[in-house]
Amino acid sequence: MKLLEERILKDGQVRPGHILKVDSFLNHQMDISFIDEIGKEFKRLFSDRPINKILTIEASGIGIACITALHFNNIPVVFAKKTKSLNLDGEQYTARVHSYTKGISYDVILSRRFLGPDDHVLIIDDFLANGCAAEGLIEIIGAAGAHLEGIGIVIEKGFQDGGKRLREKGINLHSLAIVDSMTDESLVFRKEPDV
Amino acid sequence: MKLLEERILKDGQVRPGHILKVDSFLNHQMDISFIDEIGKEFKRLFSDRPINKILTIEASGIGIACITALHFNNIPVVFAKKTKSLNLDGEQYTARVHSYTKGISYDVILSRRFLGPDDHVLIIDDFLANGCAAEGLIEIIGAAGAHLEGIGIVIEKGFQDGGKRLREKGINLHSLAIVDSMTDESLVFRKEPDV
Repeated sequence: MKLLEERILKDGQVRPGHILKVDSFLNHQMDISFIDEIGKEFKRLFSDRPINKILTIEASGIGIACITALHFNNIPVVFAKKTKSLNLDGEQYTARVHSYTKGISYDVILSRRFLGPDDHVLIIDDFLANGCAAEGLIEIIGAAGAHLEGIGIVIEKGFQDGGKRLREKGINLHSLAIVDSMTDESLVFRKEPDV
Repeated sequence: MKLLEERILKDGQVRPGHILKVDSFLNHQMDISFIDEIGKEFKRLFSDRPINKILTIEASGIGIACITALHFNNIPVVFAKKTKSLNLDGEQYTARVHSYTKGISYDVILSRRFLGPDDHVLIIDDFLANGCAAEGLIEIIGAAGAHLEGIGIVIEKGFQDGGKRLREKGINLHSLAIVDSMTDESLVFRKEPDV
């Protein structure tokens, strides 16, 4: 997505530890017009699939998922939670996920009431790196007997292996921008990832 | 908001510890058409204010804030984060918040780059109970020299004192539904909170 690559070049910042900060428009401050364009693009990319639910994970995926849902005729969004909350039932799906960015492992939980065999699911998230969060959500979709129709990612770190592993499994993954390498001086995007 | 009260009566569940579960449509699974109506109502209630930014707190406020922003001509959303993330700068505003629901205290942080004296802020959140999260956000707005134009809450627990305290301070608070009492058998709403 050209608009996204241009925005990353303009406003993204590379930090030590392979961190790409895009918090001025994507995951701390959110440029709503821009995210609306992202939602429109996800709709274009997955329009051939019978998607009836969007699944994401708190926190930064939620806003993107909600605005994307508006482009899919207002289908429901479900977000998995990262820790056991006193507000949740015991009746939940659980998957263990490791975050390399934060250096911690956590449980991803989702109430069983909100995912089942009738659901055709699009996973939406802001970043894909090692793919651990996505794999946790896929595990939950499997446990629910739901159908994974695709994964829509805003920014994929192509130099980490999550995207490669998911594509090798035959998963219908679209990343709007794939960063193949990054340094303080340059960012290299993979060409036309969505064609 | 009649539509919201009806939905709470239909789908809300009262649990021990004054917990009102509305996770089937508001803060775990999200009914996007319904949240779009909520956003439209917030726009109606705050249309007289020069709001140019929406502030919320992760996680369940984010989706509501993003969809509400679409009704305010796509103004930016900023969400405060609940723990220190390795992805954040040292340059941030911080406030200490206690969550009675979860029985823990946490720091709320917001990058200084995303809030300043030019910002006229609407705080959006799903719940108001003791008001601690809202007060943390107000503290951050004060530290930034920004202007608080109002607070929009989906569900206020009127039997806890957060709303009372904020109104006594003269804050422009609108809650779309105020639950004055709740038991397994009945929910009592405060009448016409927004008139």
